[in-house]
Amino acid sequence: MNEMKTEQEVTDRTVRCFSRLEAVLRRDGTIPEIGLPLQVIEGFLTRLAGLDSNNRFDTVCIGAGEREGRILSPLVQQLHYGLAHGIGRSGNLTERQPKAIGSSILSEITNKLALDAIRYLGISSTKAAMVVPVATGMALSLCLGSWRYTKPRAKFVVFLRIDQKSCFKSIFTAGFEPIIIDGIPETMISDGLTTDLTALKIVLEEQKGEIIAVLSTTSCFAPRQPDNLIAIGELCTKYGVKHLVNNAYGLQSPECRNQIEEAGRAGYIDAFVQSTDKNFLVPVGGSIIATFNVKSLDIIANFYPGRASIVPSRDLLITLLQLGKVGLKEIYNTQQINFEILRVAMQEYAKMIGQKVMEVKMNQISLAITLKGWTDQQQNAFGAQLFSRGVTGARTVPSGLSKTIDGYEFLNFGSHSSRRHDGYLNVACAIGMTTREIEELVKVFKEETPKWAFISSNDAHNKEV
Amino acid sequence: MNEMKTEQEVTDRTVRCFSRLEAVLRRDGTIPEIGLPLQVIEGFLTRLAGLDSNNRFDTVCIGAGEREGRILSPLVQQLHYGLAHGIGRSGNLTERQPKAIGSSILSEITNKLALDAIRYLGISSTKAAMVVPVATGMALSLCLGSWRYTKPRAKFVVFLRIDQKSCFKSIFTAGFEPIIIDGIPETMISDGLTTDLTALKIVLEEQKGEIIAVLSTTSCFAPRQPDNLIAIGELCTKYGVKHLVNNAYGLQSPECRNQIEEAGRAGYIDAFVQSTDKNFLVPVGGSIIATFNVKSLDIIANFYPGRASIVPSRDLLITLLQLGKVGLKEIYNTQQINFEILRVAMQEYAKMIGQKVMEVKMNQISLAITLKGWTDQQQNAFGAQLFSRGVTGARTVPSGLSKTIDGYEFLNFGSHSSRRHDGYLNVACAIGMTTREIEELVKVFKEETPKWAFISSNDAHNKEV
Amino acid sequence: MNEMKTEQEVTDRTVRCFSRLEAVLRRDGTIPEIGLPLQVIEGFLTRLAGLDSNNRFDTVCIGAGEREGRILSPLVQQLHYGLAHGIGRSGNLTERQPKAIGSSILSEITNKLALDAIRYLGISSTKAAMVVPVATGMALSLCLGSWRYTKPRAKFVVFLRIDQKSCFKSIFTAGFEPIIIDGIPETMISDGLTTDLTALKIVLEEQKGEIIAVLSTTSCFAPRQPDNLIAIGELCTKYGVKHLVNNAYGLQSPECRNQIEEAGRAGYIDAFVQSTDKNFLVPVGGSIIATFNVKSLDIIANFYPGRASIVPSRDLLITLLQLGKVGLKEIYNTQQINFEILRVAMQEYAKMIGQKVMEVKMNQISLAITLKGWTDQQQNAFGAQLFSRGVTGARTVPSGLSKTIDGYEFLNFGSHSSRRHDGYLNVACAIGMTTREIEELVKVFKEETPKWAFISSNDAHNKEV
Amino acid sequence: MNEMKTEQEVTDRTVRCFSRLEAVLRRDGTIPEIGLPLQVIEGFLTRLAGLDSNNRFDTVCIGAGEREGRILSPLVQQLHYGLAHGIGRSGNLTERQPKAIGSSILSEITNKLALDAIRYLGISSTKAAMVVPVATGMALSLCLGSWRYTKPRAKFVVFLRIDQKSCFKSIFTAGFEPIIIDGIPETMISDGLTTDLTALKIVLEEQKGEIIAVLSTTSCFAPRQPDNLIAIGELCTKYGVKHLVNNAYGLQSPECRNQIEEAGRAGYIDAFVQSTDKNFLVPVGGSIIATFNVKSLDIIANFYPGRASIVPSRDLLITLLQLGKVGLKEIYNTQQINFEILRVAMQEYAKMIGQKVMEVKMNQISLAITLKGWTDQQQNAFGAQLFSRGVTGARTVPSGLSKTIDGYEFLNFGSHSSRRHDGYLNVACAIGMTTREIEELVKVFKEETPKWAFISSNDAHNKEV
Repeated sequence: MNEMKTEQEVTDRTVRCFSRLEAVLRRDGTIPEIGLPLQVIEGFLTRLAGLDSNNRFDTVCIGAGEREGRILSPLVQQLHYGLAHGIGRSGNLTERQPKAIGSSILSEITNKLALDAIRYLGISSTKAAMVVPVATGMALSLCLGSWRYTKPRAKFVVFLRIDQKSCFKSIFTAGFEPIIIDGIPETMISDGLTTDLTALKIVLEEQKGEIIAVLSTTSCFAPRQPDNLIAIGELCTKYGVKHLVNNAYGLQSPECRNQIEEAGRAGYIDAFVQSTDKNFLVPVGGSIIATFNVKSLDIIANFYPGRASIVPSRDLLITLLQLGKVGLKEIYNTQQINFEILRVAMQEYAKMIGQKVMEVKMNQISLAITLKGWTDQQQNAFGAQLFSRGVTGARTVPSGLSKTIDGYEFLNFGSHSSRRHDGYLNVACAIGMTTREIEELVKVFKEETPKWAFISSNDAHNKEV
Repeated sequence: MNEMKTEQEVTDRTVRCFSRLEAVLRRDGTIPEIGLPLQVIEGFLTRLAGLDSNNRFDTVCIGAGEREGRILSPLVQQLHYGLAHGIGRSGNLTERQPKAIGSSILSEITNKLALDAIRYLGISSTKAAMVVPVATGMALSLCLGSWRYTKPRAKFVVFLRIDQKSCFKSIFTAGFEPIIIDGIPETMISDGLTTDLTALKIVLEEQKGEIIAVLSTTSCFAPRQPDNLIAIGELCTKYGVKHLVNNAYGLQSPECRNQIEEAGRAGYIDAFVQSTDKNFLVPVGGSIIATFNVKSLDIIANFYPGRASIVPSRDLLITLLQLGKVGLKEIYNTQQINFEILRVAMQEYAKMIGQKVMEVKMNQISLAITLKGWTDQQQNAFGAQLFSRGVTGARTVPSGLSKTIDGYEFLNFGSHSSRRHDGYLNVACAIGMTTREIEELVKVFKEETPKWAFISSNDAHNKEV
Repeated sequence: MNEMKTEQEVTDRTVRCFSRLEAVLRRDGTIPEIGLPLQVIEGFLTRLAGLDSNNRFDTVCIGAGEREGRILSPLVQQLHYGLAHGIGRSGNLTERQPKAIGSSILSEITNKLALDAIRYLGISSTKAAMVVPVATGMALSLCLGSWRYTKPRAKFVVFLRIDQKSCFKSIFTAGFEPIIIDGIPETMISDGLTTDLTALKIVLEEQKGEIIAVLSTTSCFAPRQPDNLIAIGELCTKYGVKHLVNNAYGLQSPECRNQIEEAGRAGYIDAFVQSTDKNFLVPVGGSIIATFNVKSLDIIANFYPGRASIVPSRDLLITLLQLGKVGLKEIYNTQQINFEILRVAMQEYAKMIGQKVMEVKMNQISLAITLKGWTDQQQNAFGAQLFSRGVTGARTVPSGLSKTIDGYEFLNFGSHSSRRHDGYLNVACAIGMTTREIEELVKVFKEETPKWAFISSNDAHNKEV
Repeated sequence: MNEMKTEQEVTDRTVRCFSRLEAVLRRDGTIPEIGLPLQVIEGFLTRLAGLDSNNRFDTVCIGAGEREGRILSPLVQQLHYGLAHGIGRSGNLTERQPKAIGSSILSEITNKLALDAIRYLGISSTKAAMVVPVATGMALSLCLGSWRYTKPRAKFVVFLRIDQKSCFKSIFTAGFEPIIIDGIPETMISDGLTTDLTALKIVLEEQKGEIIAVLSTTSCFAPRQPDNLIAIGELCTKYGVKHLVNNAYGLQSPECRNQIEEAGRAGYIDAFVQSTDKNFLVPVGGSIIATFNVKSLDIIANFYPGRASIVPSRDLLITLLQLGKVGLKEIYNTQQINFEILRVAMQEYAKMIGQKVMEVKMNQISLAITLKGWTDQQQNAFGAQLFSRGVTGARTVPSGLSKTIDGYEFLNFGSHSSRRHDGYLNVACAIGMTTREIEELVKVFKEETPKWAFISSNDAHNKEV
């Protein structure tokens, strides 16, 4: 008797608990301080899924439409917890689906937690965020397209050159054409590339009526540095042009976050986009569009034609609930510590081979080690050798290669600038990289560097002197 | 000793088997005749996943880039079999990823099986197909956008009216504007709506230089019928305009398939797009773009800016391997049989309430039952009542409602035509619907129909006479 | 506003639904008529798991004991839905665990559904059933051991010979020794083996004071037939000896079920044991002990020393909820139909090779085809060949092989009787076997039978005449 | 071309890798130094499962027996990776199954890794280990039963009292009766209870012919200490009686491990049994039987009647592969560190309430805090209060409670000795407990301790003086 009462109490308390978890997440929209156990997260997802019409068993469910969330394969069913309806409705990515209340709530909560994560990491003036189930390139494209109605005659997007295809192509996908502006060396003494504000100003001055937006970038391979968002944003405001920031993996970098926060707070950013996989360690497939103004985001959400996958939202939700704020902070802090470890290790390595790590202060994710005196072929062979040894992501960048993308020519493709250089080697330390990987990396570098490249200790001595 | 030998044999045979499965699927690109057991499918996916760099354990793996397929949450890891790299590369959705060989193979195989499925179902002239990890609306948009370079001055897409937001909005997403052409009654005696070819011809004649494409539709709610693809395609060819077919859930309808095959074989279709969830019972998030020409598809694949989720490809692969050709045929046949059952049941019901099922011969998925004599309010109340009883997808369509989408007004929104009517009730029988659902549906209809609506048996008799 | 209300309603209804499902299952203890969707079953399991202390997150949970249900590996966690505490307490398999309310409820419900399944299948006088997480052999052993206290001086169990090691060994595991009684031919005209009641009577008469129980068997390979449970039970009652029935896979056979029901209703059975894997298609690891008297079962439950795995209960619960009564009936009916198909096919095959299918009317799962005139070596080679062709479970039984198990010699091991015979081939049609497998089986039989064994059509004709 | 070659290489390498992993694990039988990623472990399990007949798709598989590993529910299939055949054969738990090669290999590897784990943790003279899919109580019972044939007239097991029902009941399950010997205080100055060797000697002297074994215990709640295994073993050897050690959760305690190693090496232990859940953080359901002699274990394996679940083996395999030796060491080291933290915290707490932590040096898992001056009712109320606050495993043990189990009376049940005491509170720090739990535990203790129990600081001061 007494036992039954206790059981009832436990049952009731548990039900209330999940309801409270749901209620709290929806109301406060904040990531829990301490991460939740996986079992709880699964329970929560299952409960949400149970609210969708295809998973309900409280009423007879009769699907008499053309899309009823039926899943044929039990394997696929499992891999989705039965969440079949996706997010959004025909007209808007954030609209609720009456058939899919659980999916709608899941999506809503994830958007809130994504916003909370961005603010918590330092871009505290952000006002709205939305997980879109397309990767960064497509998300940039959506932003650009959604602004078309504001300047129907506009034909161009100013592209502050970064040699990565997706973001360049996103301009065409949105139906625009690029005006490319090369990066320039920051100062005489730094190796970093930065925004050519003079060139930008000229372009805006001349073509402002036909330019829908400037597309700037924060995170990039060294020696590219984050663009000067504030100065760019000021110009954009002055000339009545939108400012879109490609913050692909910049959330993990304090420099990028600070610049976005500062420019955003001043009203100089219309939207910034970041990858969920690169910043939150989930599979490729989603990104977060964020704005400093609720209405701005709504216009973009409303631009999306139709429903879309819930998976990126779900994965991010799981990851944020598991991490909690404490865990999130920890992986971000670890990246910074490990980056320093990598930098020191690379400086040491560079010295052994008579080279140097470029001075690119504002880039705290990617490093560039000069390969002065190496032929292009030697550089390429070295890169290939590293890959065959299991090193992914490290690449050598010889100078002088040109590439044409959609009719536009990029001199020195891979270097983010037409300026000639002597070739270099890029390595990055992104979140998730471990110190053990860094150790192995250094080991492989040393083993695969050709013998002749090492300078004798005499030479080294001389150099130092 | 002997036992060990047998074990070795079994092991070797199993390894060879999976290799052979992979080899056969890649080479022949055909769905197996008989479906595979789930366990085998899982084994196959795990094996593919094991080829991606983030899952390999044969070499030390050192991730020194900004995106290394690391997955933080073991739960997310599980839900993806560790497939973290997505599909495609920066520049092209079908390009291989050196880091992600397994994911690349998976995507390649799925595209082949998707093509095989489409051909097997009757559109045998199809030459290429690609699963894109966006739903139908976005996929239509991708097609339209990818054609821009062929007629840089084009501004318009001709929209053969269907009252579904996604496909209408896809035009804007691609950066174009719509020219809307209303449907017209097919004949004096049929209730079906069909393409207004006269209007289309006039539009093309006048504006062909500014029109990139005509967007036609096959599957739709009755009384809308599939557009006349052949006649449309002929006009398109004549006037140098692309023809894009929205075949959302039309794969399951012989009428739609036949028309596409006929028009496609004649060279009258540039691409046709179908939903993976509606045609293959997987969760929302993907679609298949198919063409009658390999090169055409490549141009679209190449237009996509960046990587994308592998999930829709994976889900479709699982489902097709599980079904096999036999199973696939079976669910499609069942739909046709059940549609007839539903039609007969609805005719009977209609008679009981003094109404009729509209005569829309070419639409074998959706039915429309007239609600003549019902006020708008009565129709709406009936629709709401059905939803509260667990019936999803059935909807009442009173006449006279107007709606403005992105600045364009639709008279009689929901009816696919401005023409006034007396209101009706739509129900569909899509794949996956069971006879039990049909029975329940009829039961609920009868219970929820207001008493007054039923005609006395005398009246019924008179009507018949 | 209104939307929020609807959502709350759906949420509340869903919560109530799961609570109601739990309540109904506990109260009525009956398998649902129609099976539940997998998603609902998963949701239900997750909810139950959420009641266990290790999965709760409503209070701070502090584990200060030596066994706190912690699971280290997230993979293991997933594979168990976090159900870590097993079932039972130190003293009794059916006792509740205050720390593990969900696990306790799961176990309780499964026991009720197992009872319901047994009754529903025809043994309607059964009064209690319990899933034990050990296979049939160990379960028989538990029953025997739990009865020791009733006759402390007893040393023997009468074993009505069946040539299967587990059930024979279960006698030793319980601390007893066997008295073996061979089967005898049923009648002059039948090939079936049945109980030697005369011998049994003599043994009981002479040693009743030292005999704890008679262990009889229902399901077995032909030509063994179910023991004569009623006659055995009558003798047991008369001589004050327990009667334990090994019903390993007999639930699927109407003959076995009828005999158990009849004997049990008359009070002639103390317990009967069946495999969960063989009767309900779950992985090996569990069995069901059932009795015609609640108290009898409790004594056995109380005999189990300590906790035990919850997995067999969980798997059976999932399977029964998925099947529903309708589905359960269906797989059992299919077995009977397929058995007839197999029998006819084997008769045809036997005729082709001049042999016959033995007449064993009461065995409707297993068949024996004579191999008269084949040498032992020919029989063995044929058996090996079948296995190498992927046929499992079919075996040839030459005569004359002896085997010693734990000091006891079995003449003609494999034949359930010392009586010499000419060798035969056993095949079974158990639940889950498909007609396609039967077809393939016949095909392989024909291909692998040595040429010489086929009789010419002349011979066949002669034989028939 | 080149790309295809690379792919083939990666595929081949991966296949070889898994084969090598399997080969290495089988040959060396050692846990990898560094744990494997979950994805690799899953891949490995799936590969093994693919070798079982029910999962193979290389040949047509025709199941013509009564147990063919068919799994009905796809959910159950998933939760078992399709491993359906269990382990062992009718006669022996370690025998291979021709139908289930993958399951057999899995079981074999797990047994080797279990042995490696035990040795690695310090009991390095262990020669054989086997995971049995029953919890500790049943496993003890199996050992006892398997020895019966060595002394057919034996009726008794000497039970060195520990107040835990399972191990006591295991004696009856094996068909024996207990002779109970109470623990005695270790020394005048220690609070610990230890083995009464004098009493044991007398019992053995008098009844050795009827005694099959002595059942001793290592891990237990304080103030019980591990039995004196060496002295006990010496007596056992002298009197020709087996020595069975209940090492339930003792693997995690250096004291227990040392004693087992020392006694085992000297030939004084016939088998020792430990729980998989308590020592390796998997769900309840398995244990490991280990011996110092390969043949001894084989006899026990051979005693098991029939097949059994593979799940406990699988879970342990996953966990050990995930942990690696480094991870295993780490969780064991953490336990020791946390135990010290708990001890200090409890000493402090005890002082605040004028009590003390009992001096039980040899028990480094469980602590006992005196509750001198508390009435039984006050003790019970306190215990109940702790439970309701989410503290599990902590319990108060008032003196004077008696309990009868299977006809045997235990004075002072719960205290492991009939000796009266003043009541105490037990808490344990087992592996997996976190420092956060310890902090919360102390907090709850302080909050729930009745006000009157706290001594004023004056009192405290006086006491200290």
